[in-house]
Amino acid sequence: MNGADSVVQTLAAGGIDICFANPGTSEMHFVAALDKSPIRAVLCLFEGVVTGAADGYGRMAAKPAATLLHLGPGFANGVANLHNARRASTPVVNIVGDHASWHNRYDAPLMSDIQGICRPVSHWLRSTPSAKVAASDTAHAVAAARTVPGQIATLILPADSAWDEAEEAVAPLPVAPPSPVSDAAVDRAARALRNGKRTMLLMRGAVLLREGVQLAGRIAAKSGARMAQDFFTPRITRGAGLSPVERIPYFAEDIVESLKGLEQLILVGAPPPVTFFAYPDKPSWVTPEGCEIITLSHPHEDGVAALRAVADAIGAPKDGAVAQLDRSPLPQGELNAMTMGQIVARLLPENAIISEEAATTGRGFTQFLPGAVPHDMLYLMGGSIGQALPLATGAAIAAPDRKLVTISGDGGAMYTLQSLWTQAREALDVVTIICANRRYAILDLELTRVGAGNAGPKALSMLDIGNPDLDWVALAQGMGVEAERARDCAEFARAFEDAMKRKGPRLIEAVL
Amino acid sequence: MNGADSVVQTLAAGGIDICFANPGTSEMHFVAALDKSPIRAVLCLFEGVVTGAADGYGRMAAKPAATLLHLGPGFANGVANLHNARRASTPVVNIVGDHASWHNRYDAPLMSDIQGICRPVSHWLRSTPSAKVAASDTAHAVAAARTVPGQIATLILPADSAWDEAEEAVAPLPVAPPSPVSDAAVDRAARALRNGKRTMLLMRGAVLLREGVQLAGRIAAKSGARMAQDFFTPRITRGAGLSPVERIPYFAEDIVESLKGLEQLILVGAPPPVTFFAYPDKPSWVTPEGCEIITLSHPHEDGVAALRAVADAIGAPKDGAVAQLDRSPLPQGELNAMTMGQIVARLLPENAIISEEAATTGRGFTQFLPGAVPHDMLYLMGGSIGQALPLATGAAIAAPDRKLVTISGDGGAMYTLQSLWTQAREALDVVTIICANRRYAILDLELTRVGAGNAGPKALSMLDIGNPDLDWVALAQGMGVEAERARDCAEFARAFEDAMKRKGPRLIEAVL
Repeated sequence: MNGADSVVQTLAAGGIDICFANPGTSEMHFVAALDKSPIRAVLCLFEGVVTGAADGYGRMAAKPAATLLHLGPGFANGVANLHNARRASTPVVNIVGDHASWHNRYDAPLMSDIQGICRPVSHWLRSTPSAKVAASDTAHAVAAARTVPGQIATLILPADSAWDEAEEAVAPLPVAPPSPVSDAAVDRAARALRNGKRTMLLMRGAVLLREGVQLAGRIAAKSGARMAQDFFTPRITRGAGLSPVERIPYFAEDIVESLKGLEQLILVGAPPPVTFFAYPDKPSWVTPEGCEIITLSHPHEDGVAALRAVADAIGAPKDGAVAQLDRSPLPQGELNAMTMGQIVARLLPENAIISEEAATTGRGFTQFLPGAVPHDMLYLMGGSIGQALPLATGAAIAAPDRKLVTISGDGGAMYTLQSLWTQAREALDVVTIICANRRYAILDLELTRVGAGNAGPKALSMLDIGNPDLDWVALAQGMGVEAERARDCAEFARAFEDAMKRKGPRLIEAVL
Repeated sequence: MNGADSVVQTLAAGGIDICFANPGTSEMHFVAALDKSPIRAVLCLFEGVVTGAADGYGRMAAKPAATLLHLGPGFANGVANLHNARRASTPVVNIVGDHASWHNRYDAPLMSDIQGICRPVSHWLRSTPSAKVAASDTAHAVAAARTVPGQIATLILPADSAWDEAEEAVAPLPVAPPSPVSDAAVDRAARALRNGKRTMLLMRGAVLLREGVQLAGRIAAKSGARMAQDFFTPRITRGAGLSPVERIPYFAEDIVESLKGLEQLILVGAPPPVTFFAYPDKPSWVTPEGCEIITLSHPHEDGVAALRAVADAIGAPKDGAVAQLDRSPLPQGELNAMTMGQIVARLLPENAIISEEAATTGRGFTQFLPGAVPHDMLYLMGGSIGQALPLATGAAIAAPDRKLVTISGDGGAMYTLQSLWTQAREALDVVTIICANRRYAILDLELTRVGAGNAGPKALSMLDIGNPDLDWVALAQGMGVEAERARDCAEFARAFEDAMKRKGPRLIEAVL
């Protein structure tokens, strides 16, 4: 077998069963090697789709996908969504082609500083120096990606390391499970939860799936502590019958207001809250002065077991408070963030997955979802827009029996609209809602908030993505995805309900 | 004035009159500052369009455009086309927003290693530490970009450096003109051209504009030397009435065949030819053994003056051989690379600019263009696909009185299709021809050439961008650009002729 075969078979042995790919000449041996492997290959027409799909897959499958990228510029096109994946602690194994080792000295047009391009978003990075060690390096890459809570591992595979003769695939390296939380940390948290102070549990990671949420709900029922998620969190399971988790607000002053009076903040896999952007004369650090920060679990630790131990230690009841199913009637009239959120919450099927990236619309929209049937929410983790459509693409492949709903701003959706083509080719069960307000509307707010107000027409034109309006129905159809436009609640409810009943990719342009 | 005002006014003082932008919150002060400046602001809906447009602008205007990019991930989205711009020696000044200096310690979601992301494609890179020095750093950035033959200069502008109080704009720094070529180098080349050996002039840069091409034609007429351009070259002026310049082929064995028997290679701003990719058992270095390589001018030197001196030294005639206008009738029947090339060559208006990136179709297509009326050709410089549409966007802004024709493969066009929206908004006179073969067709060739043949269905599906077919007419219309489909020579000729007569953006999907 050649080096590429040894790499692909090592990936498969390591439990990787999918490769999102946008290959070029230097990756042809890897592509040929996929043929002889059980790994599914999914073509994406832009690398930002490749890496965003790997993020979505990893968040749902809790194991890495592979990506296949073409040299430095190909990797660069995928960096923004790898930044998001890195912030989400998603495991990803990137395979990046390179020229044959002896070719780089000639400074051919595609030569670039590949390691320099990969490094800022890679926890683990290696260029494999020969076909003989390519399999071993691959095993290390898989283990690095699987390191709890999940890492970005990037293996550069020069063309001669792919085509030269290799030996055989390498068995997976052992990967350590999440570390146990110390008894001292459990005791500290349990004591804090019994001292009567105003307390919040801020959670991130596996603790926001069903079991962790229910454990935290029991702890909250006993202690009176608040349960919260960051504004952006990789994944949370929520809905009727599950304990409701507050969402930390987006803007600095709203966070400050929300945390006012808090005396203890218990971190369960989450960092302390900070503002997303800096603003003149506003704080970035928003934990109230004097509030004690207590770490129950770090991201690499077993937060669910820690919550279980804390629940036992404080004698939490068997059940916490749970969100009730909202069965209020569908709203009528104007379609806006609020009414759209109510309609989606009301019509969402059980076990759906929502990929949300609608900077302005999303804030109003998502508040209704805790009253929907149970579902998973995936958020924009690193703040780099263009995540939602690729993320849903990968998540749909990881969870083929679940309905995917993407809620994206029109601005962000334009970054990686090529996702729709992959959804069509793979017949993925994804419904994309484009919140078409024809603006980078978040910037309308931010322009004033940062003190750059009194903007003239030239500045305002930089926030205006109308003129001409994007026709999302045409764009979707151009990539083989059925689409329709909704201008009011009735049209949107009809389109959404219809989309929920059918299988396959579909797009709704919600004109706001 | 604040730091952003001082930066924008320094850019304007340095001769920059356009900013291609995709801003976010941290760039709002810069956006507001544009309002008070003479700089034109052009919004692009993806950063790969921003940087590709800056490349196109710079190649035509021979001076830098500014770009405005949002933090590390925003810059990363622009890296691929900056790689191409860097390979084209195009001057570009990137302004990249960053969090306020005191915010980065909090590791907010968008925090990244911005310098790490920018470095691989930036000749000059600085993060300005305060509003007080932002203007001075900007003047240095402009001077760095303008350094002959042209560089990528990247200035990171933290939000507090933008909003804090500054002093005033800074006058441009002096920029050295191209260095004179030494008399010794001229003598060496002149002697070589008189010794009767088989000689080629390989040219790149300003020498491929009208004057340089005509000088080289005179030298060729006297000496019998061949005149050549690299397969990819930033810009060449050519057509009927101009001396014809050979194009070095793309594939290794074709280059070897083309250079066989060559005894002297005179470099005029060009590097020696190498293959684009490496192949097993094929050479990367393609200059024949024993062929002497003589450098007449380096890229930072005045190659046109050097050619003039050589022409004088060898007593070149007043005129060289020139290409004749091809007035053969329009082809009929099947639309393919050849017939499409003939039609475009026949109907192209004088002084048009062609942005070409059609990996397979382009090779047949472009061979007919030397028989067209005089025009400029812009090629894919760094080999990173997704250049052609943004490049035409920027070139059209630099040359508003000239017709732009983009010839792109369907695969490459999908990378940065958002360009069409900017062409519509700015009403640019760009006609985009999509060579719709529904394949990454170059990879069909390369799969075999690298020895990874006998591919199975999974591998072949990675080269197939049909299933579903992209509907380019719908995609263009979705972004406000009129479009039509052509399936044979008659349809294509009618569509292209019509597009040449009208102004404004238009797309033709040429089904091959």
